[in-house]
Amino acid sequence: MSDKNPLVIFTPSGKRGHVARGTTVLQAARDLGVDVDSVCGGHGICSKCMVRPSFGDHAKHGIHADEGALSPVNAVETAYDTKRGIKPGYRMSCQAQVLGDVVIDVPSESQVHKQVVRKAATTRVIDMDPATRTLYVEVPPADMHSPTGDWERVQAQLRDAWQIENVTISLAMLTRLQAALIAGKDAVTLALNTAREGHHTAREGHPRIVGVWPGFYEPGLYGLAVDLGSTTVAAHLTDLITGEVKASGGVMNPQIRYGEDLMSRVSYAMMNAEGANELTAAVREALSQLAVELADEAKVSVNDIFEIVVVMNPVMHHLLLGLDPIPLGQAPFALATNSALDLPASDIGLSLAPEAQLYILPLIAGHVGADAAAVALSEAPQKQDPLTLIVDVGTNAEILLGNKTRVLACSSPTGPAFEGAQISSGQRAANGAIERIEIDPVTKEPRFRIIGVKQWSDEPGFAKKIGRTGVTGICGSGIIEAVAEMRMAGVLDANGLIGSPEAVGTPRCRASGRTYEYVIYDGSAEGGPVISVTQGDIRAIQLAKSALYAGARLLMDEFGTDTVDRVVLAGAFGAHISPKHAMVLGMIPDCPLEHVTSAGNAAGTGAQIALLNRAARREIEELVHHITKVETAIEPRFQEHFVNANAIPHATDPFTGLRALVPLPEVNFNSGDSEGGGRRRRRRG
Amino acid sequence: MSDKNPLVIFTPSGKRGHVARGTTVLQAARDLGVDVDSVCGGHGICSKCMVRPSFGDHAKHGIHADEGALSPVNAVETAYDTKRGIKPGYRMSCQAQVLGDVVIDVPSESQVHKQVVRKAATTRVIDMDPATRTLYVEVPPADMHSPTGDWERVQAQLRDAWQIENVTISLAMLTRLQAALIAGKDAVTLALNTAREGHHTAREGHPRIVGVWPGFYEPGLYGLAVDLGSTTVAAHLTDLITGEVKASGGVMNPQIRYGEDLMSRVSYAMMNAEGANELTAAVREALSQLAVELADEAKVSVNDIFEIVVVMNPVMHHLLLGLDPIPLGQAPFALATNSALDLPASDIGLSLAPEAQLYILPLIAGHVGADAAAVALSEAPQKQDPLTLIVDVGTNAEILLGNKTRVLACSSPTGPAFEGAQISSGQRAANGAIERIEIDPVTKEPRFRIIGVKQWSDEPGFAKKIGRTGVTGICGSGIIEAVAEMRMAGVLDANGLIGSPEAVGTPRCRASGRTYEYVIYDGSAEGGPVISVTQGDIRAIQLAKSALYAGARLLMDEFGTDTVDRVVLAGAFGAHISPKHAMVLGMIPDCPLEHVTSAGNAAGTGAQIALLNRAARREIEELVHHITKVETAIEPRFQEHFVNANAIPHATDPFTGLRALVPLPEVNFNSGDSEGGGRRRRRRG
Repeated sequence: MSDKNPLVIFTPSGKRGHVARGTTVLQAARDLGVDVDSVCGGHGICSKCMVRPSFGDHAKHGIHADEGALSPVNAVETAYDTKRGIKPGYRMSCQAQVLGDVVIDVPSESQVHKQVVRKAATTRVIDMDPATRTLYVEVPPADMHSPTGDWERVQAQLRDAWQIENVTISLAMLTRLQAALIAGKDAVTLALNTAREGHHTAREGHPRIVGVWPGFYEPGLYGLAVDLGSTTVAAHLTDLITGEVKASGGVMNPQIRYGEDLMSRVSYAMMNAEGANELTAAVREALSQLAVELADEAKVSVNDIFEIVVVMNPVMHHLLLGLDPIPLGQAPFALATNSALDLPASDIGLSLAPEAQLYILPLIAGHVGADAAAVALSEAPQKQDPLTLIVDVGTNAEILLGNKTRVLACSSPTGPAFEGAQISSGQRAANGAIERIEIDPVTKEPRFRIIGVKQWSDEPGFAKKIGRTGVTGICGSGIIEAVAEMRMAGVLDANGLIGSPEAVGTPRCRASGRTYEYVIYDGSAEGGPVISVTQGDIRAIQLAKSALYAGARLLMDEFGTDTVDRVVLAGAFGAHISPKHAMVLGMIPDCPLEHVTSAGNAAGTGAQIALLNRAARREIEELVHHITKVETAIEPRFQEHFVNANAIPHATDPFTGLRALVPLPEVNFNSGDSEGGGRRRRRRG
Repeated sequence: MSDKNPLVIFTPSGKRGHVARGTTVLQAARDLGVDVDSVCGGHGICSKCMVRPSFGDHAKHGIHADEGALSPVNAVETAYDTKRGIKPGYRMSCQAQVLGDVVIDVPSESQVHKQVVRKAATTRVIDMDPATRTLYVEVPPADMHSPTGDWERVQAQLRDAWQIENVTISLAMLTRLQAALIAGKDAVTLALNTAREGHHTAREGHPRIVGVWPGFYEPGLYGLAVDLGSTTVAAHLTDLITGEVKASGGVMNPQIRYGEDLMSRVSYAMMNAEGANELTAAVREALSQLAVELADEAKVSVNDIFEIVVVMNPVMHHLLLGLDPIPLGQAPFALATNSALDLPASDIGLSLAPEAQLYILPLIAGHVGADAAAVALSEAPQKQDPLTLIVDVGTNAEILLGNKTRVLACSSPTGPAFEGAQISSGQRAANGAIERIEIDPVTKEPRFRIIGVKQWSDEPGFAKKIGRTGVTGICGSGIIEAVAEMRMAGVLDANGLIGSPEAVGTPRCRASGRTYEYVIYDGSAEGGPVISVTQGDIRAIQLAKSALYAGARLLMDEFGTDTVDRVVLAGAFGAHISPKHAMVLGMIPDCPLEHVTSAGNAAGTGAQIALLNRAARREIEELVHHITKVETAIEPRFQEHFVNANAIPHATDPFTGLRALVPLPEVNFNSGDSEGGGRRRRRRG
């Protein structure tokens, strides 16, 4: 046996092979294609390459490993153990040499491509393969007899020790490198952005130096994943080494003051010379502030944010980048660019790490954006057997329909009603907002739950608990439930008319101007608000849900189907939408309720995946070319679908499955009807 | 014949081949590898592709060309002729189709790689192949059914019509492209920088969009070639299309106020916290101003300057780039980078075209800079059979020695004396400066010529001509002649001592402090200056010329030779140096005078070549790796050579050839000598 090259078996991968006696375990791993991390390149400094050898009999692998199968613990390991400690049974793979047959376990923390489990509405596993990585290099000292610059000596080392070629450096980083080599006595830690190896868009295709520190250093490396919605900007700040989310948060899109929906913002840009620039400045400022807030919350420096990934619809895309949005306001909806973009984050005025990189997912079409691409990346309809409809609810809804055979996409201008805007008592999801509601079909009395309080409104202790916050409004998921419950309780008819107190039989229906409103909560006695659903609110919700449904219907037409197998509700508040209530409202097509799931913020999750995994970027860049785009704005059938979808749940589609499950009273509050209600003017007339 | 594919013969290249009937002449040229220019890509707009067909018998080529060998003049050509005129006998090669055997002449103005003849001290031919070029593209309109962004449609066109792939664009250029496509109705003219196809340094290796205009447009494209010396900054503004120099000029390097030579500037950076930054700001500001002045003079916009090439010594290199110069002050003279650099011109604070590119030639070693590389590019010693010594005279002299077998290089700190600084009557070369001088060996009377006046000082009309300017000082070439003439006339001894009036026998030698000076011109009667050469001037010149000679000598040692075959004098004022006087001074080794030539500003010429020809950049980047570097600062023999070179012409080297040609009187003005002179103090003592 001693004459033969020893056999090394790595677990859990099971990769095995013979290596020359004296080969380090790290080198053996590399030779056999086993994923073992190393930042310091085998200098015994970083401790990223720790492995656990197994000695004794390995019947499963058919070998016996002597204690002497690895070289004894050496001075480098002893020094590290004294200084920082090495777990019992572990060895530094860059120091331990293979002397005999042995089984080596690579613990997950020593793998480069760790898996990170993300707990969202759906649990998701992301392979960690971020674009930014750190490397430690020691270079030979300058030699005047063979003059080679600092940068050239570093390049040679990257090539020889790390097999990384064609690395580029900016002048700013070069000045840092020069100083770091002096301070670090010819040793430096580098951060490299390797997002675009071999790929070419607006940025060079080569690895780029993005950070330099003297000697061996473990810098914080963070990334921002941003879902830039028309109404809400949501972001996660994530540790690029561990994959851990350090902070999450959102702000209102300040462009709202220029127009609630996208088209009104495009109009603003058309009507005002500096309009587009104002919109651009506003959203860039919000993004900068959000980055600072999240960094503060996570107690990290914004200078340690090396990457940012943004997903958004085409209008937001153009406005963020400072491109003219006006061509997106009319056919043919010409995009300035539809490819994925790699840009310096400073190009959009972000002050993060000096060389921070911005990645923007590809757009799918003039009305179907990078947010839809992110949903496709996150939900992967192209990998599904069942025909899946994905609806990302927002001011502009992204809708995808597909399975393994084909994927279609469109977007639909739902308006901000689902996000609580245009709703009389609407508010964003915060403490005090009504998020769940039930209406008794007999008494027409509501019970509800607010964010921040566990009890329902009719349960003991509710009154005490709400003391501080009070009941403040209705959030997006709350308004969906409220309207659906009103319909199921017979407070609202299929046309969307609220009945009169006489017709419905409750004083909670009361006159409000020329129409009726339904009062959910009256806090006026205690100086609080009156929270009701007005006829105007119903109309706003009808417009929004009709647009959503019509978009989905168009895709179903294009696919040649009247039914779907699965529905995924996504969006900033997607996780909170009740599938049953969404279906009663007719936001989504009829479908077995157990096949309707919530995906949370699928666009945001897609951004997060793209932030943490380079291959995912290539995957979505490829996938968008195979998605069939449907332009709702010019499709003649959209209008027809829209009108039919105005009824609750729908004027023509039967919703048979739904009707079997829930009551949908056949009331009619139109003035001509005996039960009365609807428009008060008509009753008077 | 009509069955066969017609034969096309292009002159003057002589390239020939058969092409399918109906092929355009432009396409035929491309197929056969004939260089025919086209900016509009065959749209009949740019008129760059004009050719002259020859009909009739072509005995030489063995064919007969019918009048019908080309398709008749078509509507596109007629329209262009009406609007702008087409020379008789010329055709647009993108319109004319080959129908039969024909001979086609491509006039030089229709070739891409025109040759430009540059008239300097030596006439030089540069093949025009600049990095920046313009292209006209028409793209299909946006189509919402197959959504493709503006940029992606342009990329497809560049690929299909021009075979240019992997083009990159910045966000700023993308916003312009979007607007230009709208204004140009889907047609735009692009400027591309193609400096680095397939090459990787600090900048991406792909063609880059650097300019965008709506429709067909012929923009001005200019480039700056800069020789950034320690004392003088010289630049040429050149038309990148025609190769014509539009303006030339120079300014003093404002860093002089921080230290006259390089090492005193490095000291300033060491002693002052913000020292290096001040030096950097000063030189960047000077470069910006020079760019503006040259643009004004040439009546072009600085926004039309798309490229800048800079050559300079390593200290100036680091100071311009904002790199720390301190490591260059002591062994091992570690450079931050020694490679050629491609950077945004804005990185060094230059406001030229928004995407202007800065190219910096590679450095050769810690003391041997990009200016030396530029001299090597310009003078090409590696292509010579005779052993050639090239001396680029400046505050820091670049010295190259070599032939086809080997090239050596060093730099030597001569100080600014040759540039007129440290000289009591020194001034830069401008009207009024003495540039030529002769001293009668018998009467010791001088005659001289000043810049701006044709007559010598003893010729009729001189007094009248100088009226306005006056005689103002001595320029660099003037001081070299003055000192050499003083030595030949016996006014100055071999040790560099000026004789007393008694010893020399002329009142033009007169006491000045403790030593003597030689008065060339006394304008005091008219309120003008007294122009003399002082003992201090002689010492400054001796230091400078000793450093120069010692550097050359070191290279000769390394090469293993005591003689050279040729000497080339270069430098900002290289063209004006008289070889004989330089040799009398002992600036250069003994060598037949007819083999001493002047090359003008060889470093500046090298910068110009690199500006106009991309291949030259690759050539010098390759060549620097093969140049043997000699560090004068640490070579023990340098000091010995320096001391021996202090004498005029030299203490130990015989200068036999020179002595056969000119008188070098064996005078000695040391105090111990009977003839007297030199230091007055000693005479008194």
